[in-house]
Amino acid sequence: MALVIQKFGGTSVGTVEKIKNVAKRVVCEKEKGNHVVVVLSAMTGETNKLVSLANEVSETPNEREFDVLVSTGEQVTIALLSMALQEIGCAARSYTASQVKIITDSAHTKARIKEIGSENIKKDLEEGKVVVVAGFQGVDEHGNVTTLGRGGSDTSAVAIAAALKADVCEIFTDVEGVYTTDPNICEKARKLKKISYDEMLEMASLGAKVLQTRSVEFAKKYHVPVHVRSTFSDNEGTLVTKEDREMERVAVSGIAYNKDEAKITIIQVPDKPGVAAKLFGLISESNINVDMIIQNISEDGYTDMTFTVPKGDYKRALELVEKTGVELAAKGVTGDPNISKVSVIGVGMRSHAGIASTVFKTLSQEGINIMMISTSEIKVSCVIESKYTELAVRTLHDAFNLGEGEITEEKS
Amino acid sequence: MALVIQKFGGTSVGTVEKIKNVAKRVVCEKEKGNHVVVVLSAMTGETNKLVSLANEVSETPNEREFDVLVSTGEQVTIALLSMALQEIGCAARSYTASQVKIITDSAHTKARIKEIGSENIKKDLEEGKVVVVAGFQGVDEHGNVTTLGRGGSDTSAVAIAAALKADVCEIFTDVEGVYTTDPNICEKARKLKKISYDEMLEMASLGAKVLQTRSVEFAKKYHVPVHVRSTFSDNEGTLVTKEDREMERVAVSGIAYNKDEAKITIIQVPDKPGVAAKLFGLISESNINVDMIIQNISEDGYTDMTFTVPKGDYKRALELVEKTGVELAAKGVTGDPNISKVSVIGVGMRSHAGIASTVFKTLSQEGINIMMISTSEIKVSCVIESKYTELAVRTLHDAFNLGEGEITEEKS
Repeated sequence: MALVIQKFGGTSVGTVEKIKNVAKRVVCEKEKGNHVVVVLSAMTGETNKLVSLANEVSETPNEREFDVLVSTGEQVTIALLSMALQEIGCAARSYTASQVKIITDSAHTKARIKEIGSENIKKDLEEGKVVVVAGFQGVDEHGNVTTLGRGGSDTSAVAIAAALKADVCEIFTDVEGVYTTDPNICEKARKLKKISYDEMLEMASLGAKVLQTRSVEFAKKYHVPVHVRSTFSDNEGTLVTKEDREMERVAVSGIAYNKDEAKITIIQVPDKPGVAAKLFGLISESNINVDMIIQNISEDGYTDMTFTVPKGDYKRALELVEKTGVELAAKGVTGDPNISKVSVIGVGMRSHAGIASTVFKTLSQEGINIMMISTSEIKVSCVIESKYTELAVRTLHDAFNLGEGEITEEKS
Repeated sequence: MALVIQKFGGTSVGTVEKIKNVAKRVVCEKEKGNHVVVVLSAMTGETNKLVSLANEVSETPNEREFDVLVSTGEQVTIALLSMALQEIGCAARSYTASQVKIITDSAHTKARIKEIGSENIKKDLEEGKVVVVAGFQGVDEHGNVTTLGRGGSDTSAVAIAAALKADVCEIFTDVEGVYTTDPNICEKARKLKKISYDEMLEMASLGAKVLQTRSVEFAKKYHVPVHVRSTFSDNEGTLVTKEDREMERVAVSGIAYNKDEAKITIIQVPDKPGVAAKLFGLISESNINVDMIIQNISEDGYTDMTFTVPKGDYKRALELVEKTGVELAAKGVTGDPNISKVSVIGVGMRSHAGIASTVFKTLSQEGINIMMISTSEIKVSCVIESKYTELAVRTLHDAFNLGEGEITEEKS
């Protein structure tokens, strides 16, 4: 008898009809003889509706109260699904985060899970009940309601899977799984059978919006096998799991892209200790996330420094850097919001030479200029002009033959 | 420095604009130098919306999950009001029932409060915060969410006032207070300055829908002064309080009516022990509330028995009584759903003779036939044909001069 965690997102529970379908799906799993814990998001649109209410009251709503407000969305769906399960004869019980004791820190709107009480849930499972848990929410040690940030239900599900030592954490969503790249811009995109945690992290943070990044970090840390699959079909999806030899046979697993960045360059800044610390210290104090940072070698005691920030923070960051540029006696500051980042990802890269040069050659053959390069053990990222994004993704997908055959073979 | 509990109903918090007005009102009270605890209902229509969702899932939704669902409405309003208070510079903190520890029994959808933790609230009040508590909800000793039934927020407010030994519990609503009778059918109806708990209980249970009956019982038991007043004006409302000498000076305080009843008569049933027990036992097992019961003196070993039930249960009750009538060898069963009950209420009745006879004479002068009579120490109720309700109320209101002067004088 296995223990299966099933997480359903907002589109999967968006109407009463859909909730009834989820109930049937859960009962199917139960009838295989497995224990099932379900983790739910709020109905599609519900969280947005609550957020607008908060914004009507205040432009900067108090964060503690914001969490009290938005966490109601999940409380609605867990109650409705538990009713629906009982309606078709399946014993079930709903749990808010406070009832489970999903203890987080007190960082409202972006809390981190510290501990999960599993006693009550285990008792219900042993009695044959399906347990239905509210995702996205937690409580701090003083009993204040917290939330985990957008997409936090994925993290709830994986954390619960870790705490209960579940056999698998199934993430049901409106796509069939994780693809070699975005099927909307590359028709040859193919569903992956397997992907390693590290690859998934790169895919997720680089713009493939299937799983919340933090949930993948959690899964990696606690070795939770995560199965990303569709609510609306019975097809197998993609298993996110620890690296194995099969994965290393293939150099590249996927191509990710992110159009949501902008770049800023500070020109001819004196190359002396403390310059980068001052610049990025100020930016981070303003709560702006810097992604790539490139600094060229120094010429005549001066250097250029380029970095990327989320597009939404571009104007604010530019103003800040212009002010700091004057203080640092830089020659000037330029910026460009029309860029995007294209990344080639694969754990096999470590043992396959020449991936980066293939990337550069492929892009140059299409006349795409590379503005910035950043690499890690398992990825090569290039910043290019935004208008070339789709072309770059398709060309790289072809260059690494991602549309052909299976990337990970069946277990043998 | 007084401790004031302020309860606002659904129409008072029905929109963000109205919530902002409530915030201003609360701040006014705070600025008088008082401690304030606010108790809130859900936004108008919100509870109904949640109930329909539940009914879409199941005709008989699981009651535990029903409570999890409908209690979200109050969680939304407490968060929004706390935000609104902080937005205008007033420190505030929201509390769900589970955070306060409003402990109830486990009777889902109609739970009764057993205990209220006051420690956290007191601490916040001492720190100068306004405390905003979700009405209507509780938790049982296992941490399951419960609700107190329709209108339960009144009871929450009074119970919190009792637990904190508050100086007054203000119930803000969409009427100006408690009237001598329904102003919609009698234009001479006058707002009462004061009314005793017992009179209010009769007014509430007899159809004046200002306060949930249970909240008045609670107030009476713990001597909580309840001030019923309007959210939309600064006028003084009606103080519901313990009986005093002023009240006894006046024979009649108000006229209540209830159109929501139906009567059933079982004709010529053998007058022997156990008949009433069997009949009303069966009815109560079917969860039908019987209000008045009249049994005439026996003739030739047979008697007639008449009683009233809520109109919504009339058909079900009639079928049940017809079946039982056969078993009891009664001659027949008749019923009438077109009745209403008109009641004359006043604690002064105890020391004023002739109230009942004035009632009967007044009704007969208008040609209104009395079908059933029931009296207590402080009320006289008559069942009449439904179509005469308004006429009866107006005539009785005049007969006891309720439209004139003040009923309770200013304290001297």
